[in-house]
Parts: sequence; structure tokens; C-alpha cells
Amino acid sequence: MPRYKLTIEYDGGGFVGWQRQENDLSVQQVLEEAIKKFCGEATTLFGAGRTDTGVHALGQVAHFDLAEAAEVDTIRDALNFHVKPAAISILATELVDDDFHARFLATERAYLYRIINRRSPLTLDKGRAWHVIVPLDSEAMAEAGRALVGFYDFTSFRSVHCQAESAKKTMNHIVVTRQDEEIQLLLRAPSFLHNQVRIIAGTLAWVGEGKWTTGEVVDALAACDRSAAGPTAPPEGLYFLEAIYGEKKKQ
Amino acid sequence: MPRYKLTIEYDGGGFVGWQRQENDLSVQQVLEEAIKKFCGEATTLFGAGRTDTGVHALGQVAHFDLAEAAEVDTIRDALNFHVKPAAISILATELVDDDFHARFLATERAYLYRIINRRSPLTLDKGRAWHVIVPLDSEAMAEAGRALVGFYDFTSFRSVHCQAESAKKTMNHIVVTRQDEEIQLLLRAPSFLHNQVRIIAGTLAWVGEGKWTTGEVVDALAACDRSAAGPTAPPEGLYFLEAIYGEKKKQ
Repeated sequence: MPRYKLTIEYDGGGFVGWQRQENDLSVQQVLEEAIKKFCGEATTLFGAGRTDTGVHALGQVAHFDLAEAAEVDTIRDALNFHVKPAAISILATELVDDDFHARFLATERAYLYRIINRRSPLTLDKGRAWHVIVPLDSEAMAEAGRALVGFYDFTSFRSVHCQAESAKKTMNHIVVTRQDEEIQLLLRAPSFLHNQVRIIAGTLAWVGEGKWTTGEVVDALAACDRSAAGPTAPPEGLYFLEAIYGEKKKQ
Repeated sequence: MPRYKLTIEYDGGGFVGWQRQENDLSVQQVLEEAIKKFCGEATTLFGAGRTDTGVHALGQVAHFDLAEAAEVDTIRDALNFHVKPAAISILATELVDDDFHARFLATERAYLYRIINRRSPLTLDKGRAWHVIVPLDSEAMAEAGRALVGFYDFTSFRSVHCQAESAKKTMNHIVVTRQDEEIQLLLRAPSFLHNQVRIIAGTLAWVGEGKWTTGEVVDALAACDRSAAGPTAPPEGLYFLEAIYGEKKKQ
């Protein structure tokens, strides 16, 4: 059976997250139903990252199999037609090897976290960024972020409900930049723990407002205790940016 | 009476435009009502640019008078409280000279027009950019844009309903840039005609898709006839960016 890789953008505001839930609408459900409308078959879609309720994606990746091959442009256009009116868009469709796996073969994932740091309420960015009123020192946040790059036990920076077997993870990259009133956090790692980016964002915001130093972030990491780190930043600032694959693709 | 200058951001999606209308909600009406809630007085707010239905603002400017002076931060916060839940945000409030006028003293206005140029539907940018599917050559658009910079009769590039006495206007600046799938048009002029930016955007899009050359845009300008230029691009891509004032301000 031919396997297809999708690159997907969505506004997470209207969804209970990526993964199928009993009673609420997920991105996965809308897409699986669109695939069924297209080909008549029930399929399972495997995503690279399980985004939470309200979390957005600019480049989520997923794969699925079809019983019969179809043109990749036809698949993209048909799925974009069938997902309407949901705020989901298939950016690209590729034919991939039978052993491609969106979740298990991703060698790196990237997340963006957006903060709008100003006193006045948000209008155009409402639901698309975390609104922080207290002035934040983005240089201090950048320094603290660098202290979290490396191989560590990130127990302090994962949800107590996180189901990953181990909290020992490598963080490849945390870069904090500011342009005018917008602060962006870019994080790259082979994989992320549940709420890891949002807890890092919430903790770095404490550093930004001067409540904590980099040293206290390092202490929080060493504590291996969720209650030792800062708060979980809200979902609306978080974007799944991309998943990187090392394998050679067909076409 | 002390005069105050406001810098205002809004999501134009929910409004009939800047200016008060009989039966629909305008940005001006929401703000005038907020001022009345704050100080108890009926005031008139004068805006730098009359944006149309669905047009956004990142830095609209307006002024109004108060019977009694108040702290500028208090005014800003109170108005932001009273405009709720409308998608309007007062970014700044300044005390200005009695003879300041947001509309008549602006020496330059700037507009941004955003195009997302891709096949797939928009999600996060829906209502915030013009979605153009046909591939656009932004270099060709930039060249054609430069041909419209100068002092010309812009009759071809204004709405037939435009009420300005003369269509002879100076265009200071039209710069077209592309980053990935987003094309941005930045326009600067002392003042703009009704629909001028949107007709320029629609016409440059024709150049971008190869339907027209720069020469044909120049011919359209010379024709001094609205029907000689391209279509009016949709309002959701347009943003009032800023108004510049030459006068010296108090504080």
C-alpha cells in the first residue's frame, strides 16, 4: 500500500488538540474523516507531534496509507476540500517509503512559542500568542534558555500526566529573540515531553520579569520535580513548526 | 480643553470600517462610546485614515478633546477596558497641542498590504491576508510598483465613489517584498484616495501573475479611468500602518 506524508497547518483554537478524543473535535479526526471522504476507506493517521488543545501548527507532519495510489496534488486538493470548514490546511503531500513513520522516524522536532509583551490588549494576535503585560528582559530569557540546552532529566519541565517512559532528553536548541513587542522562543529537540515547551516558556517568562535568575532555572532542572519549575504557559502561544526526517524519501 | 492623540490597533473583521455608519458597528463608534463611559462626555474622535469594512489597523491615529485633563496612561487603560469585547486596542495615548489634528496634520500615511501566495487554504491568516493561488512574481510586482511612485493623476486607481476633490496625488514609496509564501506591499504617501491601495494591490497582482507588464500599468495610470486599472484587492489584506506628523508635540 502506498504511504503518503502530509505537511499540515492548523489554527488550534477550535480543536481539542491533535489526537482523537471521545467527545471533542480533534485535528486527527477531521483529517481521517476527510481521507475517508476522498478514498472511501477508514485509515489511521500518524502524527509527528501530539499538540494539546489550542496549540497551533505551521508544519505538523503525518502519514497514512491508501489502498490505491493517487496523485499527490490530487490528494492535497481533495483533503483541503473535505476538511472545510475546519481551520486545517494540507500544505504538501508526498509519496514516501513504506517504512516511513511520521512519529518514530522524526529525528528532530521544532516548536515556536510567541509572546506579545505589551500593556495593551491583543486584537489581531488574540488566540495566536501569549499576552504578557509585565515587561520582559528577553536577553535574560535567552541566557536562561541556553542553560537548558543539552542532555538532562527534564522531570521538572514535564506535565505530571506525561506518559513518556523517561524524562531524560536532549534539547538541541533554545533561542529567544525579540522584535519590538514580540518575543519568540524557538526550540529544537529529537522529541519533547508533555507540556515541556510551555513549562519552559512559563519559566523563562519568570526570568524575563526578574523573578528568577538563570541559576534558579538550573536549580529547578536539577530538582527533578515539576513543582520546582515555573508555570505552564498558555497553549495559544505554541506552534508545532516542523519535523525533520533523516531518511531518504521517494521522489 | 486638553487634546489627546490615540494610537490604535484593530482587527477590522468585525467592523463596517473606521467611520460611523447608521446601522452597523464602526471602530469610531465603539471608541466614542468608550470615551463617553470614561468621562461622561459625548466627544468626536477624528481619525487619520478612514479604513473600509474589514480593513485592519496596526497604528491608526485619532484625536479627541476632554473637558478635564487626565493622565495619559489612565486614559489608555480606561478606554481599553471600555472597548471590550471589541477587537480594538489603544496602544498609546499622548497629550498634544490644541491645534493638533489627526487627519489634517498628517504629513504621511503608510499602509501594508499582505498577500499569502500559495495553493493551500489559509488557517491562521484567514481574514488577515489576501489568499492568491496563482504563483506571483514579486520582482515584477516590485518593478511595476516603482512606476507608480511620483506625482500623478491617480484617477485610474481610485474608487468611482471617491469623494476627494482631486486625484492628483504624490506617492512617496511602494516597496514589494517576498518572504517564503508571503508578499508584502508597503505604501507611503501624504494621503491616499478611496480604495487606492487595494486597486494598486489588485493591479500589481495582475503583473505578478504575468497578465500585465509594467508598461501596461503605466498605460492604465495615464488613462485616468478607473476601468483601465486592475481589480480592487479584498479588504482583509489591508492594514493602516501609521500616520506621521511633522509638528512638535507636547511631552
